[in-house]
Amino acid sequence: MIQPTLHSTTQSMTSPFLAACRRERTEVTPVWFMRQAGRYMPEYRALRERYSLLEMIRTPELATQVTLMPRRLGVDALILFADILLPLEPLGLGLEFVPGRGPVLQHPIRTPQDVRRLRPVTVEEDLGFVLETVRLVQSEVGGQVPLIGFAGAPFTLASYMIEGGSSRHYLRTKRFMYEHRDAWHTLMATLAHVTLDYLRAQVRAGAQAVQLFDSWVGALSPHDYRLYVLPYTRLIMEGLADLGVPRIHFATGTAGMLPLLKQAGGDVISVDWRIDLDRAWDTLGPDVAIQGNLDPVLLLAPRDVLANEVRYILQQAQGRAGHIFNLGHGVLPETDVGSVEFVVEIVHRGIMR
Amino acid sequence: MIQPTLHSTTQSMTSPFLAACRRERTEVTPVWFMRQAGRYMPEYRALRERYSLLEMIRTPELATQVTLMPRRLGVDALILFADILLPLEPLGLGLEFVPGRGPVLQHPIRTPQDVRRLRPVTVEEDLGFVLETVRLVQSEVGGQVPLIGFAGAPFTLASYMIEGGSSRHYLRTKRFMYEHRDAWHTLMATLAHVTLDYLRAQVRAGAQAVQLFDSWVGALSPHDYRLYVLPYTRLIMEGLADLGVPRIHFATGTAGMLPLLKQAGGDVISVDWRIDLDRAWDTLGPDVAIQGNLDPVLLLAPRDVLANEVRYILQQAQGRAGHIFNLGHGVLPETDVGSVEFVVEIVHRGIMR
Repeated sequence: MIQPTLHSTTQSMTSPFLAACRRERTEVTPVWFMRQAGRYMPEYRALRERYSLLEMIRTPELATQVTLMPRRLGVDALILFADILLPLEPLGLGLEFVPGRGPVLQHPIRTPQDVRRLRPVTVEEDLGFVLETVRLVQSEVGGQVPLIGFAGAPFTLASYMIEGGSSRHYLRTKRFMYEHRDAWHTLMATLAHVTLDYLRAQVRAGAQAVQLFDSWVGALSPHDYRLYVLPYTRLIMEGLADLGVPRIHFATGTAGMLPLLKQAGGDVISVDWRIDLDRAWDTLGPDVAIQGNLDPVLLLAPRDVLANEVRYILQQAQGRAGHIFNLGHGVLPETDVGSVEFVVEIVHRGIMR
Repeated sequence: MIQPTLHSTTQSMTSPFLAACRRERTEVTPVWFMRQAGRYMPEYRALRERYSLLEMIRTPELATQVTLMPRRLGVDALILFADILLPLEPLGLGLEFVPGRGPVLQHPIRTPQDVRRLRPVTVEEDLGFVLETVRLVQSEVGGQVPLIGFAGAPFTLASYMIEGGSSRHYLRTKRFMYEHRDAWHTLMATLAHVTLDYLRAQVRAGAQAVQLFDSWVGALSPHDYRLYVLPYTRLIMEGLADLGVPRIHFATGTAGMLPLLKQAGGDVISVDWRIDLDRAWDTLGPDVAIQGNLDPVLLLAPRDVLANEVRYILQQAQGRAGHIFNLGHGVLPETDVGSVEFVVEIVHRGIMR
């Protein structure tokens, strides 16, 4: 069996990303971007013309090729090219990506009976192609740039499963949660265990850090988060602890419940732009690292505005150890690659130099 | 000229809503609901079958009838039946409500030239029907239940003007703000002056409180809020101060920048469910009243869940003066009227009784 703890310890000597995750001082602020391999890149679009999104993800050679694309940006970490919804296919929901609509689930959850009908997932079999991608990426860049594995968090997965796709107000999800509390808790426990297995398998395959995406949990009140979500996120975070790899806890719109996100766990909390980075960090306390928090729309802004806002964020982290520069959410398809490279440069140059 | 200051002082003797706005102790916690007159009510739907939304709003007799509908719920305040986008019609944007799509503007703002083309607005002429509704409502219920006037805040109006309708990420709005800074500031100043005139006219016509809806400003970072929005909201709030009526400052998704909302102004800050009420109030300080903050989806939950969450909110405000119970956003069309009445009862009963 691979020894990920040893592996990642070796990495931390040379990787500013892994060092910052552990709140060690680094020469430069590490930077990577959510959705840094994506439609905004001409080489991605060229590949995408020939293959569907799921074909690209399910073919380890292609997924590896895409994962590696952002190397040219000079980023300090790569993130696996995959999708948070992949486990929903073996769970029996029928995952499709419909152009112009995004993800669509053919068999959404509408009743407590639907929860009982979920199929058991065996990660090594059902999601083996993802693990193979992790291994291939490692064989390409192992020891040079750390690879981040990831999964969707139970609430965010449940919201897609119940809504049947994307949503604005999460009406069905919340109603299900309030009306069918037992079924909700069964669903969340199922998703927590699948997610934990999945992330552990990614680390065993060679991922040196993991990010748990609870993208839409900011739709909830802190009270509901505590009752309906926190225990399951914590189950995953605690279940990963023995692996010794940094755990990044990502969410958006959660400025009002950062202490609860911290309680749920994670070595790094990823915050969005809706709160000043220093205020978020003061609220979280110095015993976690922080990731963020540029508004992705700023990558579409004129360079002077962009530079100004990047420096504003760097200033807030000044003098503290454990800041990983990132966006508050994914790179938008309209983004110019040059602007992304420009941000990497400014962040690496730092505000003092 | 009507003397609104005297008028509202008289009101405060008997109105728990106006008293709470002034942070005076009240016998019961006052309660009203955003969009308390709307599609969830059978009597509203009956009227709506015969008239379009804009016909109802532009006919003072009909708008008055709708404004008064929620009296039967036992609420402590009425809010004018109108729409935040009404000033966009005289500004020259061509306002329509398209079934299934919501508001659509025929002439959105896409260039700095479009800002220069905005037409001057004379509130008494261009929006006289709203003022007439205020007078009619007052003649029906004056002295019994206070009437809240309202307007959209400059950022929220600008977002509709630039997007041409509703939006999820406010891409066009933010790009315009970053790329055309001078035009942005001209637009915001124009909207601030129109909004101030409009709200002053509503108070002169008899509104005993006003609410400024900055519904979508939570899409911004605190840094951008300070640079691009705060001065204009402050202009409105300060421009209303001499009238002596409570000013409610409403926004959603702003848990990370409450101190800035307070700086912008308002006697009452209306917060959504994404932050605990007591944490929000601690952040704001005791020198403002607070309005909120039930998730509207909870009105669709089973009664025991709903009651539990209402009491959770009341508990957080216990022992402090100046809480107005409300939702964090508008009543959803799927809501059962009985659930709204149920909440009024629980709030009025209080947690001690």
